[in-house]
Amino acid sequence: MNDQALTSWPIWQKLRSSAEKMELPEYHLKHLVNQDNRLENYSVSGGGLFYDYSRQRVDSQVMGYLLELADTRSLSEKFNQMMAGAHVNVTEDRAALHTAARQFSNEPVYDNGRDVIPEIKAVRNQIKAFAQAVHNGEIKGAAGLPFRDIVVIGIGGSYLGTEFVATALEGLADKRINLHFLSNVDIDNFGRIASRISAETTLWIVISKSYTTTETMANLNQAKAFMKANGVPPEKHLVTVTSKKSPGDDPENPALATFHMFDYIGGRFSVTSAVGGVPLSLYVGYDRFEKILKGAEEMDRHAAEAPIQKNAPLLAALISVWNNNFLGYETQGIIPYSSMLSKLAPHIQQLYMESNGKAVTIQGMPLDIDSGVIVFGEPGTNAQHSFFQLAHQGRPFPIDFIGVVDPVYGEEQVTSKGVTNHQELWANLIAQSQALALGKADRNPESTFSGNRPSAIILLNDLSPENIGRILSFYEAKTVFEAFIWDINPFDQFGVELGKTMASAIRDEIARKNKNPGYEFDNRDPVRKFYLETLFNSKP
Amino acid sequence: MNDQALTSWPIWQKLRSSAEKMELPEYHLKHLVNQDNRLENYSVSGGGLFYDYSRQRVDSQVMGYLLELADTRSLSEKFNQMMAGAHVNVTEDRAALHTAARQFSNEPVYDNGRDVIPEIKAVRNQIKAFAQAVHNGEIKGAAGLPFRDIVVIGIGGSYLGTEFVATALEGLADKRINLHFLSNVDIDNFGRIASRISAETTLWIVISKSYTTTETMANLNQAKAFMKANGVPPEKHLVTVTSKKSPGDDPENPALATFHMFDYIGGRFSVTSAVGGVPLSLYVGYDRFEKILKGAEEMDRHAAEAPIQKNAPLLAALISVWNNNFLGYETQGIIPYSSMLSKLAPHIQQLYMESNGKAVTIQGMPLDIDSGVIVFGEPGTNAQHSFFQLAHQGRPFPIDFIGVVDPVYGEEQVTSKGVTNHQELWANLIAQSQALALGKADRNPESTFSGNRPSAIILLNDLSPENIGRILSFYEAKTVFEAFIWDINPFDQFGVELGKTMASAIRDEIARKNKNPGYEFDNRDPVRKFYLETLFNSKP
Repeated sequence: MNDQALTSWPIWQKLRSSAEKMELPEYHLKHLVNQDNRLENYSVSGGGLFYDYSRQRVDSQVMGYLLELADTRSLSEKFNQMMAGAHVNVTEDRAALHTAARQFSNEPVYDNGRDVIPEIKAVRNQIKAFAQAVHNGEIKGAAGLPFRDIVVIGIGGSYLGTEFVATALEGLADKRINLHFLSNVDIDNFGRIASRISAETTLWIVISKSYTTTETMANLNQAKAFMKANGVPPEKHLVTVTSKKSPGDDPENPALATFHMFDYIGGRFSVTSAVGGVPLSLYVGYDRFEKILKGAEEMDRHAAEAPIQKNAPLLAALISVWNNNFLGYETQGIIPYSSMLSKLAPHIQQLYMESNGKAVTIQGMPLDIDSGVIVFGEPGTNAQHSFFQLAHQGRPFPIDFIGVVDPVYGEEQVTSKGVTNHQELWANLIAQSQALALGKADRNPESTFSGNRPSAIILLNDLSPENIGRILSFYEAKTVFEAFIWDINPFDQFGVELGKTMASAIRDEIARKNKNPGYEFDNRDPVRKFYLETLFNSKP
Repeated sequence: MNDQALTSWPIWQKLRSSAEKMELPEYHLKHLVNQDNRLENYSVSGGGLFYDYSRQRVDSQVMGYLLELADTRSLSEKFNQMMAGAHVNVTEDRAALHTAARQFSNEPVYDNGRDVIPEIKAVRNQIKAFAQAVHNGEIKGAAGLPFRDIVVIGIGGSYLGTEFVATALEGLADKRINLHFLSNVDIDNFGRIASRISAETTLWIVISKSYTTTETMANLNQAKAFMKANGVPPEKHLVTVTSKKSPGDDPENPALATFHMFDYIGGRFSVTSAVGGVPLSLYVGYDRFEKILKGAEEMDRHAAEAPIQKNAPLLAALISVWNNNFLGYETQGIIPYSSMLSKLAPHIQQLYMESNGKAVTIQGMPLDIDSGVIVFGEPGTNAQHSFFQLAHQGRPFPIDFIGVVDPVYGEEQVTSKGVTNHQELWANLIAQSQALALGKADRNPESTFSGNRPSAIILLNDLSPENIGRILSFYEAKTVFEAFIWDINPFDQFGVELGKTMASAIRDEIARKNKNPGYEFDNRDPVRKFYLETLFNSKP
């Protein structure tokens, strides 16, 4: 079956026919939601969260076919093979063992015949000891002052997941510690942070698997120059999170501590490894980091073990493929009704789009469908006052609404119009999903709503570290389940290489011009030459 | 012509044929960019910025048709009518005079026969005097302490534009002043801010045209409770930006100052009115706010006066409609290669999607095309390490790259690989647009790039307040030009009403339950009832 184009599979064709049927007026969501026991039949609790897909454009026939698709594609088996260390990242011949990063049992997990659990646990213990030593003052800056600012130097997968979790758990953080992210090579990212910190009380965490990432190394050089200018020795103010034997794990480049990351955990899946573990343990405490792991582990087990019709991330993956490949929605909104989850969408944007924005199958055959969708989002109710005009009356796109039952700052509430702010937030959460689905006829054309716009609601009980771990793992599992359906490799990213290669050639020209101001830029590409000259001529 | 469906217009059909032609291999961007004088012929300097569309999928025939479309639709005339006070917001019978907010001459602009310039200038003078009095210490908090934290209470158009500008100009801000945005009704938005400020040194700016916006009023009540609990009188710590005679402009609700906003300037176009003026003048100084206005005014004049083939926002609008309605791209990326512009995309997301996500023409006829696209974006190079895998090898989407010739913190640069951080940033900016356009053949399927992915580059010389004003106005003009092409009203937002109405009914039920804990929720909609019960049962 794998050597045939997706669209020729019998189950794919059945789903296509169902999609045509769903365009009929009687399958408008305003009718579907009125089915008996709609919510009971189209929602699931699992892995510690609640997933409601009752306002997705599916009926029992569609769900039957989608479950058949899941079966045909052996999704659960593949997920378990992934967790057991199979080299599912075929192009790079690597395992994808982010789930091992949050395993607490000692049950072995083998990569190339070697159990990875001991080294994972060793790193965890090292993080615990380091964070405690910083918190109790055993480890201080060179001038004997405690660390007050932590700057994480890292980009992409070494940044977005940690930023999401840190923002979500900010209410639990040590108020004396400020966390900064130095990701962009843009000097203004560095300049802005440098203007707000004191070198003597700053700890820098450099995160790069290879320790060669261009942006990260350029920012590290800025940081070292800053430390030097302020008379602070880097080996007392800098820790590294990197691969064994990378340049960041070399006594020639001394650091306060080095934590290992492993090639069987990809960047965008690495929040629960040392990548997230070091900064998050310093920010909210190691115990809370461990709680994140426990929540993620619970969801991993659910994803691996729950039967497909009760499996929340698997159902979410099926619905996502349905919306994308059959109903034709090319974008997906992620709208958390929680300001603490403001960085969820940027994280999922990377996780999903870098994993599933692929053009070929693992056999190297061109895909005959478009795999990933474009993911974007902002918190609600903000989004209602931003782009929801289009969501209701323009081009439709599916939305994942995320609700949080108990807020962080719940004790501070006064009422307006008889309800607390949190209740007002929920009134809107409930109303939006309903309004998008039902629509409304009206005499005035501008007040007419076509409805039939699909959405899901995902509920977390609160913003505990466990729940943050659960939702992280939920979206990771959903992402890889979708990849397994399409038979693509969600763990590589060769699509970023061409831009890097071209940037490298341009950098070389700039470096030549820096050395020799008389150097004339190559004019085979006049556009490129124009921009290079613009960059140089602007110089004062 | 206006009473006929767009798709039946002869020029629309000519563009359709051209779009088919552009799918032929010989029209791949890798060939188009090699045309003689491609950059010179497909770029324009105007209104103080540079717009390069040489890597858009257009040729001279397409551009000819697009210019004909612009002519047929009388875009320049409509823009000038808008600036002259015509009631282009037909559903609400209002003018759209955001351009008057930055007019410096005394030339009258009439709305309903009344010159609006005097009242606009009066508000500007009032802002200037107020900001100066705060900065020189004449106006202080009730306890005699200077203001150190400014909290802007406002949502949507009362928030996103100001946040964009404040972030962009942060390097110029008074370091003693922290600016916070309390937009979301989520109590965690308030709680997070309240945990970081001191009531005695905090100034609250409440921004709401009607002074009835639910979120803003709920947050105002939180703020008042906070002030009361800390013994601080609101009339000494709160200013309002609101319509004449709204409840926020009523001596019954005393405030330190009240600044007027006018119904001829819509929220998402209001950054250059008192909405942005009050917070920005306090944050970066009134003089800099005036420079923003001057930059915006320059671009307004360019948009109104430049011939269509030299008109940057008009060309950008034509390209956008071409990409959307003819080439079939449903999303638009906004990728500024500048971390200071990190809030540009969320602002444009609102500006564009709320304006152009419409389903009917101004005559109330259903549109036979989809108007607005979905706008999203993050800064580069960050985006390269996040979702650019999909941009290069997945579903294609057009991108506006924004480059800044001189950075804010340029003096801090050390070199890596022979180049400064800023040069590295530019090497990537140049490379990405090139890589997306050209693509690359490769023996390995996963390293094959189809190319032919369109993008534009917009250059700003630096992040001066004038340039921020220019890019604000550029996107505003582009947005309304597109609306004029489709004959939709970009100034109303009836699409947000249904959700509000439904939320209001849900709020009423919650309020009843708060009063009477025995109240049983309406069970006609079991999904709604389920969520309401979940919200209440969670209570400790």
